[in-house]
Amino acid sequence: MIRFECDYAEGMHPRILEKMIATNMDQTIGYSEDPYCDRARDLIRRACGREDSDVHFLVGGTQTNLTVIASVLRPHQGVLCASSGHLNVHETGAIEATGHKVIVLPSEDGKITAQQIQNAYDSHWADATHEHIVQPGMVYISQPTENGTAYTKEELEAINKVCRACHLPLFIDGARLGYALAMEDNDLTLQDMTNLADIFYIGGTKVGAMMGEAVVIVNPALKQDFRYIIKQRGGMLAKGRFLGIQFETLFADGLYFEVSKHAVGLAMQIRRAFEKKGISMRYDSKTNQQFPILPNEMMEKLAEKYSFSFWEKVDESHTAVRFCTSWATKEENVMELLGDIEKL
Amino acid sequence: MIRFECDYAEGMHPRILEKMIATNMDQTIGYSEDPYCDRARDLIRRACGREDSDVHFLVGGTQTNLTVIASVLRPHQGVLCASSGHLNVHETGAIEATGHKVIVLPSEDGKITAQQIQNAYDSHWADATHEHIVQPGMVYISQPTENGTAYTKEELEAINKVCRACHLPLFIDGARLGYALAMEDNDLTLQDMTNLADIFYIGGTKVGAMMGEAVVIVNPALKQDFRYIIKQRGGMLAKGRFLGIQFETLFADGLYFEVSKHAVGLAMQIRRAFEKKGISMRYDSKTNQQFPILPNEMMEKLAEKYSFSFWEKVDESHTAVRFCTSWATKEENVMELLGDIEKL
Amino acid sequence: MIRFECDYAEGMHPRILEKMIATNMDQTIGYSEDPYCDRARDLIRRACGREDSDVHFLVGGTQTNLTVIASVLRPHQGVLCASSGHLNVHETGAIEATGHKVIVLPSEDGKITAQQIQNAYDSHWADATHEHIVQPGMVYISQPTENGTAYTKEELEAINKVCRACHLPLFIDGARLGYALAMEDNDLTLQDMTNLADIFYIGGTKVGAMMGEAVVIVNPALKQDFRYIIKQRGGMLAKGRFLGIQFETLFADGLYFEVSKHAVGLAMQIRRAFEKKGISMRYDSKTNQQFPILPNEMMEKLAEKYSFSFWEKVDESHTAVRFCTSWATKEENVMELLGDIEKL
Amino acid sequence: MIRFECDYAEGMHPRILEKMIATNMDQTIGYSEDPYCDRARDLIRRACGREDSDVHFLVGGTQTNLTVIASVLRPHQGVLCASSGHLNVHETGAIEATGHKVIVLPSEDGKITAQQIQNAYDSHWADATHEHIVQPGMVYISQPTENGTAYTKEELEAINKVCRACHLPLFIDGARLGYALAMEDNDLTLQDMTNLADIFYIGGTKVGAMMGEAVVIVNPALKQDFRYIIKQRGGMLAKGRFLGIQFETLFADGLYFEVSKHAVGLAMQIRRAFEKKGISMRYDSKTNQQFPILPNEMMEKLAEKYSFSFWEKVDESHTAVRFCTSWATKEENVMELLGDIEKL
Repeated sequence: MIRFECDYAEGMHPRILEKMIATNMDQTIGYSEDPYCDRARDLIRRACGREDSDVHFLVGGTQTNLTVIASVLRPHQGVLCASSGHLNVHETGAIEATGHKVIVLPSEDGKITAQQIQNAYDSHWADATHEHIVQPGMVYISQPTENGTAYTKEELEAINKVCRACHLPLFIDGARLGYALAMEDNDLTLQDMTNLADIFYIGGTKVGAMMGEAVVIVNPALKQDFRYIIKQRGGMLAKGRFLGIQFETLFADGLYFEVSKHAVGLAMQIRRAFEKKGISMRYDSKTNQQFPILPNEMMEKLAEKYSFSFWEKVDESHTAVRFCTSWATKEENVMELLGDIEKL
Repeated sequence: MIRFECDYAEGMHPRILEKMIATNMDQTIGYSEDPYCDRARDLIRRACGREDSDVHFLVGGTQTNLTVIASVLRPHQGVLCASSGHLNVHETGAIEATGHKVIVLPSEDGKITAQQIQNAYDSHWADATHEHIVQPGMVYISQPTENGTAYTKEELEAINKVCRACHLPLFIDGARLGYALAMEDNDLTLQDMTNLADIFYIGGTKVGAMMGEAVVIVNPALKQDFRYIIKQRGGMLAKGRFLGIQFETLFADGLYFEVSKHAVGLAMQIRRAFEKKGISMRYDSKTNQQFPILPNEMMEKLAEKYSFSFWEKVDESHTAVRFCTSWATKEENVMELLGDIEKL
Repeated sequence: MIRFECDYAEGMHPRILEKMIATNMDQTIGYSEDPYCDRARDLIRRACGREDSDVHFLVGGTQTNLTVIASVLRPHQGVLCASSGHLNVHETGAIEATGHKVIVLPSEDGKITAQQIQNAYDSHWADATHEHIVQPGMVYISQPTENGTAYTKEELEAINKVCRACHLPLFIDGARLGYALAMEDNDLTLQDMTNLADIFYIGGTKVGAMMGEAVVIVNPALKQDFRYIIKQRGGMLAKGRFLGIQFETLFADGLYFEVSKHAVGLAMQIRRAFEKKGISMRYDSKTNQQFPILPNEMMEKLAEKYSFSFWEKVDESHTAVRFCTSWATKEENVMELLGDIEKL
Repeated sequence: MIRFECDYAEGMHPRILEKMIATNMDQTIGYSEDPYCDRARDLIRRACGREDSDVHFLVGGTQTNLTVIASVLRPHQGVLCASSGHLNVHETGAIEATGHKVIVLPSEDGKITAQQIQNAYDSHWADATHEHIVQPGMVYISQPTENGTAYTKEELEAINKVCRACHLPLFIDGARLGYALAMEDNDLTLQDMTNLADIFYIGGTKVGAMMGEAVVIVNPALKQDFRYIIKQRGGMLAKGRFLGIQFETLFADGLYFEVSKHAVGLAMQIRRAFEKKGISMRYDSKTNQQFPILPNEMMEKLAEKYSFSFWEKVDESHTAVRFCTSWATKEENVMELLGDIEKL
């Protein structure tokens, strides 16, 4: 079985592993106050182009989302989020468990628009009984989204503008950020992201690391006491150096961008192979996740040799599925898949 | 200005006030353990036809909703609720503040169906990654709904059946329960409600009382330690006797049903007057709230003399508004309104 | 049985009841935005000497404590409180249910000192691992305390000074505030309280009202969106006018202070009668609660005719009990008790 | 600088690292449903002597504590815990953030007694107003404690007996469990622990692993839906196999017990060296943490070459400090320390 079902099927990039081996018996202090973390923070700040930003390391995505949101909102506030947003559908109510409502904005492709945010804000404040309604307190988007789609610079600038005007901090979930930055027609740099978000994170778990997400806090108003919240929510790793080691390796010489490019290139080959066979895509993804709508027999045929995720039933005879590539995907496996698609 | 904007504009039924006057200097113990509360509990149990049910008194609706839901659910569970449900839209995230997600089911008229509940349950458990999704843990409906509509006996029996089969406790918000029981074509008795719900409440605030909601716990599994939760959530009134006095008065000789009938009768007269003028109704309500879709000029004309609530903009020239009657609505005021509608 | 076991055994002051009768059928808007509430707010602001303070009405004490604390603190912060503080021992974890730790300071008589607050603050920030410890975020005291004792002006000024220096908002629970203001040797005015607290409340439930607590927010930084939090926590009364009516009556011409004086005068007579018999007091209370340490036989003898609260077992043969007076305590009942104490 | 300040200064046991290297490019499914986790679960079940227990892997201690407690308690319940317990003092209110009070039992040496638990239970239920007080809902102890002390079999049996009688689930924090099992005079096996606890965990982070805690749920009533709670609280690792790999290595052939023995042996040598110099110990620890009470000059002298933790100021001239050994402590470093202690 060759696995394309997710982007966390393998371990970690070999260079990270080498670094772990090399440093294993070093003694350091705990809780991410060690020199590896310090260097990783510096490298990330530099890559983001904002020396004054705060960088924190957490272990996983749900944890990061709930920690950031719990830190930013007051009790009566909620977070605006696409209906398909990860924290709305796949985190077992982690946000609600911190006391906050996820305020859902409809979305077909995983993205929301500046206009939707403006409307949600306006309609809240226009309501005479707004004190009886959850107050929009921040905006959550993912880059790329759950559906593999990604915001353009223009779209993100528009969202940023509305957020500033409405005093809504903008939080970008970058669990797969590398893959968006590696898109063929991407026009957003990491520096742009940093300038447009108030707080965001650079995902490691799905982009080469064994685990770990690097939160970048740009807006000074959101920096205070963030480490307390990490600790309270169970996200402070005792041997924090292992997060530092990973991000140091990923950002020392562009490895993060390199492995992302690798994954996206292979994903686009898969997409094109399907399209060549007349298969249409559920979403227009240019990142490492591809969502072909397969005739059921074709799906069953492919499932004999490859694992991929069920996405949704489209009609009686068609099913949307998800193929993921990652930093670890082997070219020979993709070649084999391409051949098999061709033969279908 | 004659007020039809809500059903809590006046004080309390004069007979309740009389009872408060007569008992004011009596000394009783606190926290609803006094003889008035005991008698009220007995009367309610008898009216419900379930001597073995537990009856508790709380002060208001949001408080009751959050207390019941916090008591019933485990942390990873959510409550199924119509998109228009009070706890989804008008309680400032009170449920989320107890840690639970409101799982929204679409609804056009305020009601949800047995089939929707079954589907939500099935789709949760069919999902291979269901542990990543909030588990449906109970069902919340209102009788009548926010839109004045009400469940029939058949509908409620179907919902009850699904809930039993799926082990989902059924919670009925009866903030305006009297008004549903008083509908012309109502086929549900209070005893039916009791048999079909696991836990529900009989609203006082909007049906003759100054304040107060009587929670009836039918399902023995939900009874344990409920008073602790009331206390923890701030719902335990020190001078609890005032809740007992009110419900004793309302249930001693049918006053609750009598005042409900009064309100519904007047509301239906208003509805018919509008319909006679060719005005259509936003919802098919047969309870004390009526939602005519008024041409804007007509709305403005009426607003000079009457207060009513804005509901929603229907199109450029039409607006849905809400007229409420209550136990306190004066016939002469309604007659005046009927005349003015006629003249429009 | 003559009841001295608590200060909420009777209904409400007759003048409040009269006002309720007189206004019962008036129509007003809900949620404390009516003219009665407006007038009550004005009267309270004037009595406090701070026209710029915000005044909100809630129903009960636990509800008020949890609402205020949830509004003020960030998630990683806790509230400093005497070990005997109401919110630490008698609110079923209401504060923890909002996510916050009650940081306990030892107290023998119910009071805490400025020095204790300073030490708690210093020791937190001196700890190298302070991010692993709940951060002190505000200070909670009661005036008078659970033990009937009260702060002097000097003590409160010292606490205020430390709180300002440490940026810890000072919250004063005044559930029985009237009784502290009515002490013989009280040197604190309501204006002083207002100047020394950041936020506090004037208790109604135990001081003449049927229910209700008036929160006064002095510190502008704590005012924002407070009504949202009230609603979310279930404390917003639909017929809010009933809170307005009560506080308007209590503050229109000094009734609040008058009834407090009545209660405290009678309580001190009870204390003196016990002391004359050689009975010592568990706490040096000069307010409406008195805590004689009774020989067990004496306690049993008195219990035949009077109800009072068990407080704590002092030794094998002695028990501390609590006698409460209130705005409603009848002089003839106290006279009878004094006679019976004399005869013991 | 030679570090003795904590037991998480180094990376992971070399055999774990080898296993990570060997398996790095294997493809597995996520979220601890992979074969490594399955094998680790089997090995742990076998080591515990309970094939029917559930085993779950989480990343860190605070996360594990908050997840277990949130899963077990109803909203109005709290967890009984020694005043020095980790969750009371060093988790930034993580338990309160899930809505629950930590009910503190005084402890001088980190342990609590069966009698204290019984008393807490009895005094709760004896209180006439117990509904106003947090209900004891479970018991939390650590083996070994924060102070290095450990329960004997007799003590743990007594606690188990009280917990059963009072229907209080017993939760044992075993973040350093290996070190207790390796004590010279230990009389508790892992099987005993399993039989005496309702739920407990076997710490990896501090006993040879890079990270990870293995929760063992023995009591069937506590098993339901535990994975949902892990996910909700941010504890479900995407690449869960890394937890499986670690625990498989630790439990395949007794490595967990072997490394624990190593650490405890060295710690006892340090203790004896201090005692030989007439230094007394703050706690009678026979595990990997030792707490000598050092004259301040001696402390400063040692600090030039070794790092250790400040524990508490004992008097003007003496300070209690903490020396930790671990699976990774090098004998030569300890020998050097012993020599330096000798020379003091």
